[in-house]
Amino acid sequence: MEKKSATEISTLGEFGLIERLTSRLARRNTSTIMGAGDDAAIVDLGEEVMLISTDMMTEGIDFDLSYFPLKHLGYKAIVRGVNDILAMNARPEQVVVALGISAKITVEALDALYEGMEFASGELGVDIVGGDTTASMNGLVITITAIGRAKKGDVVYRSGAKEHDLICITSNLGAAYMGLHLLEREKRVLKGVDNPEPQFEGYGYLLERYLKPRAKANILDALRSEGIRPTSMIDLSDGLASDLRQICRASECGARIYLERIPIARQTTQLAEEMHIDPVIAALNGGEDHELLFTVPLEMQEKVVQLGLIDIIGHITRPEAGVILVTPDGEGIALKAQAFDR
Amino acid sequence: MEKKSATEISTLGEFGLIERLTSRLARRNTSTIMGAGDDAAIVDLGEEVMLISTDMMTEGIDFDLSYFPLKHLGYKAIVRGVNDILAMNARPEQVVVALGISAKITVEALDALYEGMEFASGELGVDIVGGDTTASMNGLVITITAIGRAKKGDVVYRSGAKEHDLICITSNLGAAYMGLHLLEREKRVLKGVDNPEPQFEGYGYLLERYLKPRAKANILDALRSEGIRPTSMIDLSDGLASDLRQICRASECGARIYLERIPIARQTTQLAEEMHIDPVIAALNGGEDHELLFTVPLEMQEKVVQLGLIDIIGHITRPEAGVILVTPDGEGIALKAQAFDR
Repeated sequence: MEKKSATEISTLGEFGLIERLTSRLARRNTSTIMGAGDDAAIVDLGEEVMLISTDMMTEGIDFDLSYFPLKHLGYKAIVRGVNDILAMNARPEQVVVALGISAKITVEALDALYEGMEFASGELGVDIVGGDTTASMNGLVITITAIGRAKKGDVVYRSGAKEHDLICITSNLGAAYMGLHLLEREKRVLKGVDNPEPQFEGYGYLLERYLKPRAKANILDALRSEGIRPTSMIDLSDGLASDLRQICRASECGARIYLERIPIARQTTQLAEEMHIDPVIAALNGGEDHELLFTVPLEMQEKVVQLGLIDIIGHITRPEAGVILVTPDGEGIALKAQAFDR
Repeated sequence: MEKKSATEISTLGEFGLIERLTSRLARRNTSTIMGAGDDAAIVDLGEEVMLISTDMMTEGIDFDLSYFPLKHLGYKAIVRGVNDILAMNARPEQVVVALGISAKITVEALDALYEGMEFASGELGVDIVGGDTTASMNGLVITITAIGRAKKGDVVYRSGAKEHDLICITSNLGAAYMGLHLLEREKRVLKGVDNPEPQFEGYGYLLERYLKPRAKANILDALRSEGIRPTSMIDLSDGLASDLRQICRASECGARIYLERIPIARQTTQLAEEMHIDPVIAALNGGEDHELLFTVPLEMQEKVVQLGLIDIIGHITRPEAGVILVTPDGEGIALKAQAFDR
């Protein structure tokens, strides 16, 4: 290839990169309702729409096989894939799986991977309907493409948040991030040790949140049955700060979230302190939570609280107010975008 | 992970592997018409169906960036992805793109990749509607998931071939394989040379077939307008021998193809002889042709011939006759499956 200029991708950031790449894409089919820019793409089926999202995980970046059991990895891959459909308030129905298989992967390893994928599919009610395998020179690669359906009016976009809406999350944050840190620490400490015995005691919850995150389809069902329709929604994969900024950007609004209201699990705080990490940073920027971040109209407050499944952490403001974290002493800190990491 | 036993994937072969992995998958949604086992999976939409197929390409296995221009790679990735939808006799409408991006890939390189993808999308009338990017420790990875639609009755499966049906292909074979060999040879010869000048003269067609294969949507349109409906169809990606065996397996039939009738381009024969490769092997087992292999009822022979776009290379037989290549002197050779290579 010609090398007129060579710009490193990090200079654009992930969102800048995606914007650059997708800005020139034409739309040729009337069935294409919406292209890139939300958790999933949307295809018109008449009264219904079909939602499609794709998610790639590569070895060494998204997982380390030295401590990630393949069964869990399969489970997590499906949850990650399906979450993007749930985040549009749609019902996931099918997934297709593309695998890049490195030479060290055995048939038994793939059995375990598929066992985990099928187990997650059973829990989430989706069917694995097809796939592709290719060889990979360097490490396992997994691409999950998930397909879902919804009535046209039921789809929730990132762009629907309105001033005064409440900002909600489906679980405590930062636990998966600390689980990853724990696994990395034990790997480092035990490097070269025969019969290594990693010290995970007291931190089982963190490992589970990282290795086997649960999709929150049940919370969407609960919202629906209570007549609560989110105004905007996103999968919490890059961290609260980044994902909230995505909602604010798409909805052209600002937000105020309150530090005291952000739920952080006891184990998260404990390990963070042990490892000299600020637990708030873990919760705001850790990523991989795979929970849902959504907004609801202010008048739904009581209903949402009564469900007992959801934390309200703040509210939507006018765009000029920015995206602000309010500390316990009332100080407002602007939430920054993260550097490109995936 | 536990290491009770460790079976190398090569012992199963690709098809054995896919069968093993998919045999235990449950079907939970009534909208799932068909899962793994054809070019694309099928989702029920009522009168219509939606077809979904996924295709992963990894650097070092499916392409070598030292001679594969990124614009061509983007073009080829879309053609490969869309071909699986065409091979079901459906109209491709959308694609989603997942990229694993290694550190050496620049923004300009991704621009070129997307330029090629968008160019192919324009030719094929599909929309790139979404995607995902992740980092990759080792090489570029591209997964294209293509989505198409068809009326339920129009879908052509691998399984519909009947005795006496004619076996058809949409172009000469083996050219892409020889194009790849040429590129590999020049890379080898010029290793370490300053300002290398590869010798491609007289073989431009082979390079184009490998670097920029064309999807044959026009031939499907021509068949449709002549009222010719294939009884079975498959994308020619693994080589004629392997892909014909797939049709015979799915259709529970045998086949006889005639060596003299298999079209091989002059450049293919010439380079094969120069490189001491049997051009017939290139045509039968080379792979990457990305043409369509299909069957039509015998009574369509005249119509098919009149189109002038299609070669008839043999006919379908009873299953017990096997899958046979007939040599010019009338000898029948059983076509074997290939070893696992992707």
